[in-house]
Amino acid sequence: MSIITLTSDFGNLDYRVAAVKGKVLSLNPEVNIIDITHDIQAFNLIQTSYIVRNAYKYFPKGTIHILSVDSFYHKSRKNILYKADGSYFLAADNGLLGLVFFDIKPEAIYEITLNNRFDDIVNFTSTDVFVPAAVHLANGGLPEVIGRKIDSAKELLFPKPVFNESEKMIIGEVTYIDNFGNIISNISKDFFESTGKGNEGFTIKFRNLTLSRVFSSHTEVVSDWERETEFHGQSAAIFNDSQLLELTIYKGSKKNGAKSLFGLNVGENIYVEFV
Amino acid sequence: MSIITLTSDFGNLDYRVAAVKGKVLSLNPEVNIIDITHDIQAFNLIQTSYIVRNAYKYFPKGTIHILSVDSFYHKSRKNILYKADGSYFLAADNGLLGLVFFDIKPEAIYEITLNNRFDDIVNFTSTDVFVPAAVHLANGGLPEVIGRKIDSAKELLFPKPVFNESEKMIIGEVTYIDNFGNIISNISKDFFESTGKGNEGFTIKFRNLTLSRVFSSHTEVVSDWERETEFHGQSAAIFNDSQLLELTIYKGSKKNGAKSLFGLNVGENIYVEFV
Amino acid sequence: MSIITLTSDFGNLDYRVAAVKGKVLSLNPEVNIIDITHDIQAFNLIQTSYIVRNAYKYFPKGTIHILSVDSFYHKSRKNILYKADGSYFLAADNGLLGLVFFDIKPEAIYEITLNNRFDDIVNFTSTDVFVPAAVHLANGGLPEVIGRKIDSAKELLFPKPVFNESEKMIIGEVTYIDNFGNIISNISKDFFESTGKGNEGFTIKFRNLTLSRVFSSHTEVVSDWERETEFHGQSAAIFNDSQLLELTIYKGSKKNGAKSLFGLNVGENIYVEFV
Repeated sequence: MSIITLTSDFGNLDYRVAAVKGKVLSLNPEVNIIDITHDIQAFNLIQTSYIVRNAYKYFPKGTIHILSVDSFYHKSRKNILYKADGSYFLAADNGLLGLVFFDIKPEAIYEITLNNRFDDIVNFTSTDVFVPAAVHLANGGLPEVIGRKIDSAKELLFPKPVFNESEKMIIGEVTYIDNFGNIISNISKDFFESTGKGNEGFTIKFRNLTLSRVFSSHTEVVSDWERETEFHGQSAAIFNDSQLLELTIYKGSKKNGAKSLFGLNVGENIYVEFV
Repeated sequence: MSIITLTSDFGNLDYRVAAVKGKVLSLNPEVNIIDITHDIQAFNLIQTSYIVRNAYKYFPKGTIHILSVDSFYHKSRKNILYKADGSYFLAADNGLLGLVFFDIKPEAIYEITLNNRFDDIVNFTSTDVFVPAAVHLANGGLPEVIGRKIDSAKELLFPKPVFNESEKMIIGEVTYIDNFGNIISNISKDFFESTGKGNEGFTIKFRNLTLSRVFSSHTEVVSDWERETEFHGQSAAIFNDSQLLELTIYKGSKKNGAKSLFGLNVGENIYVEFV
Repeated sequence: MSIITLTSDFGNLDYRVAAVKGKVLSLNPEVNIIDITHDIQAFNLIQTSYIVRNAYKYFPKGTIHILSVDSFYHKSRKNILYKADGSYFLAADNGLLGLVFFDIKPEAIYEITLNNRFDDIVNFTSTDVFVPAAVHLANGGLPEVIGRKIDSAKELLFPKPVFNESEKMIIGEVTYIDNFGNIISNISKDFFESTGKGNEGFTIKFRNLTLSRVFSSHTEVVSDWERETEFHGQSAAIFNDSQLLELTIYKGSKKNGAKSLFGLNVGENIYVEFV
């Protein structure tokens, strides 16, 4: 049973998510449809790319991922298909797929030609372009039949951390805040370790706060599990599952997690000073 | 694999949605269960009808739709089954299905007799009446086995726009506000065009604002895609995917979409003056 | 087709729910994955237990339930598997499963040995421990292969109502508030009836309000269905679908339901005085 995943900013109230699912099942009732999320902030491509980049790796190779964010149909805009890391990704040519694969070279990029650029056919891009193309792939069809190979797609700049050599300081920023209020930065463990090589220590700075250790998981904070409750509310920096520097409050939540206690928002700076 | 869709005001936290799905799978583990939405405002039949009317058309004919809104069991109230537009719809006899099909004559209406009107059997209508009836249909069973044909069901008045001939003015109202803050009225393109025939122009009026053009899609606002960002935040009227007059802000969201900028709420009037 | 259900406090935005589903389908693409809820309040075990206890009973025997609440991996904490009431339940050894089955003796308890207690393997407990164990069971594997039998797991105290004999009074508390604002207590119909036996009447007291009758359903409040609208907003006590004493407002919602009108929160006391 082929898998098609859906990611969108449609929310779960409107009829749009159901429309996409209904259209898939109308074309092939045996497809397994899985939601990644529909709670993306309207038109937020950075947020979308963070979620999809972390989620798709858990799915079997060959899975088809539809990304319906900022995909209103316009006859002057392409819709595109990436074959990357063994799976398929469909989106508007808005730079989103370049954000998802900022560090992975896609195996192929196609402009979707099926139904596209026909004002009289396409009303709602997701049901009228993405779904027929995705079901074609789910049925084992070749991408060449519904698209034509292109060399590149629109690029968006992923906010990358910079290293100031004279100050021996990384300047990164908050890119995502999760359901527990954890603050995720764009500073990867690799970047942290390669720029910091040869120094004795470091200080992570944000707002008026500092941290001088990075744990390897949320629970490493708890040095003695028998006294686990004593660690509730402790602040810490960790390298998270995606190997990105994350600020966290042990057992925090939306209300009393890192976001609310530290007051940081997406786009704000986080600094690492090496000494 | 038969499809049963679920629409409710249960929310996604309580055990109720899971109970309905568990009951379906207990009766037939091969049914494909698809959520339309569970975020309906408590008991809001107008909102439910708008969503279901737009969603069901994307599903294959023969799909079975359960509508669990305002469906608390009471021995004096019927539960009903519509066969309409090639599919099945189950709901309490509260007027909801008449709202969904205000412009389509159902092929047949049944009072559900399975389990119904037995105080000692029915606790939770959705699991105890709708699900067994729906699975019976999903298994290819005839509606006559679980219901008896009736001529009509409870009717609710759908808020229809009116045309004031002496003033040459349509008086419509807001019926739905979507996830992007778009404001959807009850004024259809057909009604707009037939009442406005022979006039030179028109003015759409709401609150203190006016618009004098209707676009055919959200992106038609963008006359030049190269300068797309310049159009962010532009207000416009469009005929939406459902061919209803919609007030929109290009690339608006819940926070800065049409709802918040125009300040309109469900039930407020929208006027179209022809000149 | 085996069924695996998911319950978590991950929310529906983050990549975590999708990661769990992707991992399941990577191991066995034929498993049917059903969400119970992902909207659990962060780390709230009482809330989780209420929802799972009510939901699982609707699923076929043999269903495998993953409970990802308070399940951060720590090498000093076990992950456990309950076989209970004919189905499987996987969770961290945090007391949660004891809360779900506070009144049912499990058929067997296992410490999950698969992948567990290996810091270098386990990153995210749900994908790295629960999913492989659950899919093993879904494939018909024996629990003994992925776990070892243990006698008991961590216990948490379920907030039970007490009966003050001299005052002839039950002292219970609010354990859950549902999507309609209904207030659910920990006072079961059985406890109510057995402690109240032989008395003429009773008064339910909370905040400054009293009620002296318990209905058997939400709609029993409506003595005459023809005048149903006159009953909107009426307060009542009922024994709900779980046979627990519930305070409700007929046709209430989050905004004007029992929670907002009575002002009660989880953990507050509800009293029943017999006379």
